Amino acid sequence: MVEGTTEGVKAKEKRKTDENVIYVGNKPPMSYVLAVVTQFQASSSDEVVIKARGRAISRAVDAAEITRNRFVKDAEIKDIKIGTESITNEEEGRTSNVSSIEIILTTKKKGK
Amino acid sequence: MVEGTTEGVKAKEKRKTDENVIYVGNKPPMSYVLAVVTQFQASSSDEVVIKARGRAISRAVDAAEITRNRFVKDAEIKDIKIGTESITNEEEGRTSNVSSIEIILTTKKKGK
Repeated sequence: MVEGTTEGVKAKEKRKTDENVIYVGNKPPMSYVLAVVTQFQASSSDEVVIKARGRAISRAVDAAEITRNRFVKDAEIKDIKIGTESITNEEEGRTSNVSSIEIILTTKKKGK
Repeated sequence: MVEGTTEGVKAKEKRKTDENVIYVGNKPPMSYVLAVVTQFQASSSDEVVIKARGRAISRAVDAAEITRNRFVKDAEIKDIKIGTESITNEEEGRTSNVSSIEIILTTKKKGK
């Protein structure tokens, strides 16, 4: 509900992405794990946000858990938010509600 | 990780349930919405916990959102936890990891 989603369904994975946001779609979970790990290493920020909608929500949780357990062991879950977004299918002109999740991962590294 | 899950995969929906815990499985989301709403009305507690594993995680989020937006409008999300559980498939003798979620809904009703 934070940003307008008038662009419809197609732009699911790459909307106006903030730099440290990973949008989880239909690829295998490891693709997103890699994206999250890369983001932690590349950015000066120590925070990565994983977002997903609908069925991809479980994949987002998988990606967060795999990252935390296997790759970035000092990562912690700072916050998890769930919400509902209205999606307009432009072809059929229907509006439907879809659940969304936002998982905020953070590392405590200070000297890096 | 809170309780032992040596019983294997089958007992997914009805383990030693605490009274106010709803386990989300493969039924349609509205089944679980109904269970959550009933739990809020029936119990003296003002807290309901929705739990799910694997692909049912997105359904758990759906159930929480539908409950909150349509049926129990004073319900709030108190906390959301995610984790990883080891599941042993007894037939094949394999152990695999599965993500889990726990959504704690609460109402503020005091005089009830």
